[in-house]
Amino acid sequence: MKREIPLDKANRLLNIGGVVLITAKSGERDNVTPVAWNVPVSKEPALVAVAIAPERFIYKLIEESREFGINLPTLKILREVYFCGKNSGRDVDKFERTKLTREKAKFISAPLIKECIANIECKVENIYPAGDHNLIIGKVLRAVVEAKLFEDYLNVSLEEAKTIHHLGGSLFTIPGEIIDVKNYIS
Amino acid sequence: MKREIPLDKANRLLNIGGVVLITAKSGERDNVTPVAWNVPVSKEPALVAVAIAPERFIYKLIEESREFGINLPTLKILREVYFCGKNSGRDVDKFERTKLTREKAKFISAPLIKECIANIECKVENIYPAGDHNLIIGKVLRAVVEAKLFEDYLNVSLEEAKTIHHLGGSLFTIPGEIIDVKNYIS
Repeated sequence: MKREIPLDKANRLLNIGGVVLITAKSGERDNVTPVAWNVPVSKEPALVAVAIAPERFIYKLIEESREFGINLPTLKILREVYFCGKNSGRDVDKFERTKLTREKAKFISAPLIKECIANIECKVENIYPAGDHNLIIGKVLRAVVEAKLFEDYLNVSLEEAKTIHHLGGSLFTIPGEIIDVKNYIS
Repeated sequence: MKREIPLDKANRLLNIGGVVLITAKSGERDNVTPVAWNVPVSKEPALVAVAIAPERFIYKLIEESREFGINLPTLKILREVYFCGKNSGRDVDKFERTKLTREKAKFISAPLIKECIANIECKVENIYPAGDHNLIIGKVLRAVVEAKLFEDYLNVSLEEAKTIHHLGGSLFTIPGEIIDVKNYIS
């Protein structure tokens, strides 16, 4: 069961640097794409940034609709995430091919992804040029997370909360143990 | 022994979302500060972004000098990283207090940190407002990494390459196993 968390805690879903699945919809077309280059940028207001190349299909959908979803996948759907990164929404319906389930959002038209452990709804606040990508700044409108996985922070020691972190190519890593620096002796 | 890597591979040091130590120097004063909110944003040109609150001392040094270093710490210096985040360079010399070692950079005046497994030298390309932080876009001038830890990607399965990922408060996680999606059966 997912529950809402305060907007100024949404950064704790992205803080550790996992790949996210970005969803967007414009008119009748929607799409889902993995983005490793995501980062929180402000706590109050709650803002996040995602770097997306302007030639990508998801970029067009976000530019047209001015809103997008951020969905936090885990190891359980690694193959689906990889498929979404290797294929373009111009050619295939990635939801249909991966069997990922669209879930209705509250404030945006883009679908959210049921199989992800957290979902963030954003509207576009700004778009900044940044080399071969553009930085899309999203204002967080709503954030939900699986209740048992988040208690002020994401409990990545649980099997269901293994976020996926992109090393390069087909290689990924997942979080290991949790360390409290206050108890840590090097 | 650290070796240079191609600039368009520098993103692979930040890709997985570890905390970095930002270094900067203006006039006679230098400083070092952990930043969890860092992200690559472009491959060619190689650009990275770091979100830093304008009231922080490191921000002032970067704004004045228009350059900064990105240093990748590991679990081995977690306590030092935490100390640097809990104290301001306005009050203490963090290098002196933590015993972290300044290393001379090639292209920038800011020191690099010897105990970090990778170092990136940047000049400021742009600064964009983003809520309670500003997004500093850095152009990568040079990137070095411990030779045995990086072979096209950061080998986080090695003990010496355990980057630190901030969950919130005093809690961190480190990378566990490496997974090749091509061999992965969920």
